Formats: sequence, structure tokens, C-alpha cells
Amino acid sequence: MSKPRSRRGGGRPTIADVARKAGVGAITVSRALREPGRVSEDLRRQIQAAVDELGYVPDPNARALASARAEVFGVLVPSLTNNVFAEVVRGIYDSLSDSPFRIQIGNTHYSGLEEERLLQVFGSQRPAALIVAGIDQTPSARRLLENAGCPVVQVMETGPDPVDMMVGFSHLDGGRTAAEHLLEAGYRKIGFIGARMDPRSQRRLAGYRAAMEAAGLFDPRLITTTPVPSSVSLGRELFRDALAKMPTLDGVFCNNDDIALGVLFECHRASLDVPKQIGIVGFNDLDMMQVSFPSVTSVRTHRYEIGTRAVAMALAAIAGNRPEQRIIDLGTELIRRESTAR
Amino acid sequence: MSKPRSRRGGGRPTIADVARKAGVGAITVSRALREPGRVSEDLRRQIQAAVDELGYVPDPNARALASARAEVFGVLVPSLTNNVFAEVVRGIYDSLSDSPFRIQIGNTHYSGLEEERLLQVFGSQRPAALIVAGIDQTPSARRLLENAGCPVVQVMETGPDPVDMMVGFSHLDGGRTAAEHLLEAGYRKIGFIGARMDPRSQRRLAGYRAAMEAAGLFDPRLITTTPVPSSVSLGRELFRDALAKMPTLDGVFCNNDDIALGVLFECHRASLDVPKQIGIVGFNDLDMMQVSFPSVTSVRTHRYEIGTRAVAMALAAIAGNRPEQRIIDLGTELIRRESTAR
Repeated sequence: MSKPRSRRGGGRPTIADVARKAGVGAITVSRALREPGRVSEDLRRQIQAAVDELGYVPDPNARALASARAEVFGVLVPSLTNNVFAEVVRGIYDSLSDSPFRIQIGNTHYSGLEEERLLQVFGSQRPAALIVAGIDQTPSARRLLENAGCPVVQVMETGPDPVDMMVGFSHLDGGRTAAEHLLEAGYRKIGFIGARMDPRSQRRLAGYRAAMEAAGLFDPRLITTTPVPSSVSLGRELFRDALAKMPTLDGVFCNNDDIALGVLFECHRASLDVPKQIGIVGFNDLDMMQVSFPSVTSVRTHRYEIGTRAVAMALAAIAGNRPEQRIIDLGTELIRRESTAR
Repeated sequence: MSKPRSRRGGGRPTIADVARKAGVGAITVSRALREPGRVSEDLRRQIQAAVDELGYVPDPNARALASARAEVFGVLVPSLTNNVFAEVVRGIYDSLSDSPFRIQIGNTHYSGLEEERLLQVFGSQRPAALIVAGIDQTPSARRLLENAGCPVVQVMETGPDPVDMMVGFSHLDGGRTAAEHLLEAGYRKIGFIGARMDPRSQRRLAGYRAAMEAAGLFDPRLITTTPVPSSVSLGRELFRDALAKMPTLDGVFCNNDDIALGVLFECHRASLDVPKQIGIVGFNDLDMMQVSFPSVTSVRTHRYEIGTRAVAMALAAIAGNRPEQRIIDLGTELIRRESTAR
């Protein structure tokens, strides 16, 4: 859905467009954007509304920065400590190490609004490319990406409607694969345990649910989730909650490997035999899954390669050879181990 | 040790100084630095030697960048996926989120030469501050830091001779504390297991050795290390090696928690009772140490706080209130748990 915009030509919206829309002078807009504390809150909101509606990004020339695009890749991830994203960032970093491009990282803290704010900041620096995690941008964030004027790669997930390019995998398929594997191994009361429950976790849950419904075994009491950030210790707590709710639980699909490790430790502590009494499947396949005792079945994701592929796509686009294949699905891979071998 | 430099006044070395020293023209120096592929390898080396000796950093004005200092904090860490540094970076990031400053991260891959290279790149952008991990910079890297013309904070470790400011802790004390705790708990054949063995790991080993020597129990065969990067799976392998070398081993101080977790899993697999037959101490105290079964004693480090303190020191210096206390030692804390409770 595109609405007509009151500006000349088809280029990026200008500060004059924002001023016209907000009904104020361009200098007032400039001041409100640079030093928000110097204008009234009402005026700031009025101008921000115009900025958001137009998808305006401050002109770097007006900020006395270089006129050319900066040799910077803006990278937006939801967490700096989640090992899953650290691997993607490492892939991006390694792929750029022989290029003139530097990386600037933004941490969205899993917040769509923070992502919007960071896209405004990053966009004003006219990056050479933007790499953003996920496909669930807010409408304003999506507009900012569309108007960024540089290659954009959405990573970690694929979907039907890329802003520009995409590289990732289907979280729904990954979740379904995990649940189907537990079903095939003979588990019946299979729980889903998840923390954070961002959109990607929700889709893993949807995949689990689809498999359980297809088997006629779905029961909402099998689901134990929390919006709290994920950790190994939280995995233990959630598994305790799940067992309290459903003492006959005989399997668990864990939203990620940290949760799975917490479940495994709690099984040791409660003397529950894995895999005989409880089957466990994790997600991502971190290194420790192959080492734990028993080793834990997990859905492997290709995180480092997502980073390297995203850079390759962006560099190709910068060089004028935009890839024909705009969506790369790297898929997932079920790694069968002792935790489901009964 | 400072040597006389052939340049006017006491300011930063100029491109003319480099040209004079290398015996070539300034334009040749400029070309060699910007497009190294366009000059011969010999010439490039000759110019690089002059750059290194003078501690020259390209003038950003000559590169048509803004004349003012960029609103960027340069952050150099040895790894993007090691959770230990991710916590420090998160502390830095969070502390800067309400400031105008952005973060640019460099990954040194535990290489002094790569650190030098990154300091040249970062320095040419005239950052507002530099935060670098560790105190073992090469002489050239140290000169680059001294000539950076901005606040510099060395983090993760303390030492007697800061470039500018420092916040961290003593790895030697941490290692000694771990070994002394195992000794007090009655363990005697206490091994040291470590991977990567960067300078901070070496000092933890030195602390372990000091404690073992003081107890009259040191034996070089108790030490099992590798230069390979650390991981949970490597911890298991190294523990197997250690046991093969010294079957009477009854305790282990692990260089980090990933290694400790690998040791714990191998104990489960080999039916070795923890803490009765084997006592385990980790380092850093990651979340999973409190959850594992049995829970694992670890030397807690204050990584997030190191990040926030480093930013506070740098911001104070930028504001002209350079802290009187240039070295902050946040210490370590032994967290006693089941893995040594016998």
C-alpha cells in the first residue's frame, strides 16, 4: 500500500517535505531532530509523526558528514550475548575482513520500536548495506528499510516478502521436524518449552503444534512458555513447571539448546532417565549438544553461513550484480543423538 | 623508551614525516596506505616500517572525512562469540545507548598483529574513545594507542602500566584462588586444563602454579593445555588426555567454564563421581554453572560491569573530568558449589 507523497520526483523525502507535512519550518525540523531537548514535547511528536509517515532519513550532507556512502555495514541483531546471533555476526565480520567495509552493530533488544530507532540512526549515516535479523519489522521500520537507498538483507528467517534480499530458514519447518522426530521415536506426551517467545520462537511452536495436531496428540497443557529471556537456569525452571502441570510428560521440544541443557540437568537431578523416561530435542545445535551426557538431539541451523551469505549478497548488489535469487533458504538439519535414542 | 622523531613540534606524526623516514614522496605514502595493491611489496613494507616506527595514523582530513572526532567508540575484543567478551560488549553498549556515541567493534582473533592493524584503521577515523581488551599490546599497538589522541581504556585485566586507564581484575589472583580452594577442600592431584592459552590464561595458570608450589604439590604433568580455541567438546578431550597422563588425578582447575562443563560431562560418561572422586572449578561463572548437575564451583568475573565502568571512565575523560583513579580492579569472587563440596 503506497500513498502519494508531496515531494518532487521519486527520490528520498527531504527535510522540506517533513517541514511541509508537519506545518513548521525546515530549521525547526532540523533542530527537533538534532537536539530534541530544545523543542517542546508536542512539537517533537508532531515532527516525528511526519518523519515516520514519510520514512524520512536525515540527509548526511546537512550534518556535515561525507557526501559519499559510508564504508559501513549496519547490522541489527536482537541480542549481543545470545550465541546464536554472535555466530551470524562472526560470519558477517569474517566475510568483510578483506573488504574496505566496517561493521556497526545495533542491539534491538528484541524490540520493534528500538529497531525503528536504530534504523533512523543508522540510516542517517548512509551505510553501504544493512543486515537485519528477522522478517517482523514494524511498518515504520519496513519503510525505513525500503527508503534506505542501499542493499538490505534480512537474515535468520525466510518469508514470502523480502524488503530486498533474504537468507535464513523456516522456523516453522524446524519446529515441525523436531516434534515429528520425537513422535517417530515413540514419545507421546511431548511438551514444548520456550522462553522469550519472539516471532521466530512462535513459529517453531506453530511447527510443533502442526505435528502434534496431525498426530492427534496436541494438548495446550503441553506448552510451557515465558516472555523472560532464555537461559540454562530458566530451562530447568520451565521444565519443573511443565512436569508439575503434566506429570506424564515423556518428551520435550526445547525452543533452543540452552533450555534443552537446563532440562537435561534437571532430569539428572530428578533421576529421570534420558532418553528412556524423557526424550529431549534442542534447537540450533550448539557445540555442547554433542558433548553433553547423554548427547542431545538438536535441529542444526547454519548461522555462520547465514552471515557469510548475507555479506556476499550485499557485496554483489553494491557491485551492481544484484543476485537473481533474492531469497536463500539454507534449511535446518536434524542431528539425532542419544537424548532421543530409545 | 622514546626515540627522537624527525617532525616539527610535539603533535601527531604527519604523512610528510613518514615520507621523509621512508625516503619516498608523500603521494607514494598516501597511495601505499590507501591502495596497497598499487605499489610493490617491497615499497609497501618500507613505508609500513616507517608508519610503525613513527606510530603514524592517517589524517582523517586527508581522507575527506569530518574534521571533528567521530562520535564512535572503537572497541577491540579477541572474539565475537566467546560469551565472556559478549558480556563486556553488552555492558559497553548499554552504557552508551543514551549517549550520542556509537560502537564500532573490531575482532582481533587473539592476534597482536591483527590488533595493530585494527588500531591503524580505527585510529584513522579519529574515534572519541578506544576500549581494548587486555594489557599485552605489541610495542607498535601500544604506540598507536598512546598517539590515538583520545581516551583509551584497557579492559578485562589490570597491570602496573596503563596506556591511559584500565578496568579489570587479576587473572593470577583468580587462578591462585581456584587452586587454593581445591587444596583446602582436600584435593591433592589437582590438574590445570586450559585451551587457547592467551596471556590471560597464562596468568591464571601462573596463579594455579604458585598455589600448588606453595603446597609442595606442583608437578608439570598436571598441566594439560592446547593453543586450540576453547569449547565444551575440547574440555572433554583435554580431560581425557589429562587422565591418561595422570590416572590418579582428583581435581581440576579449568581455564574457563566451557572447559569445566566438558570435564563434568566426561565425568558423567566415565562414571566418575563429582565431587567425591573429582573436584571441578571453572572460571567466569557463566549462568549454566549454577544449574548443572552437580552445580560447578567457579571464579566469578564481573564482565558486564567492566564494560559499564570502562564507558563511565571514557565519558568522564571526554567531558574533561579524567578520573583520578586510573586503574579499577573489580576483583574476582569464588562461588562455592557442589562440584567441590566433599
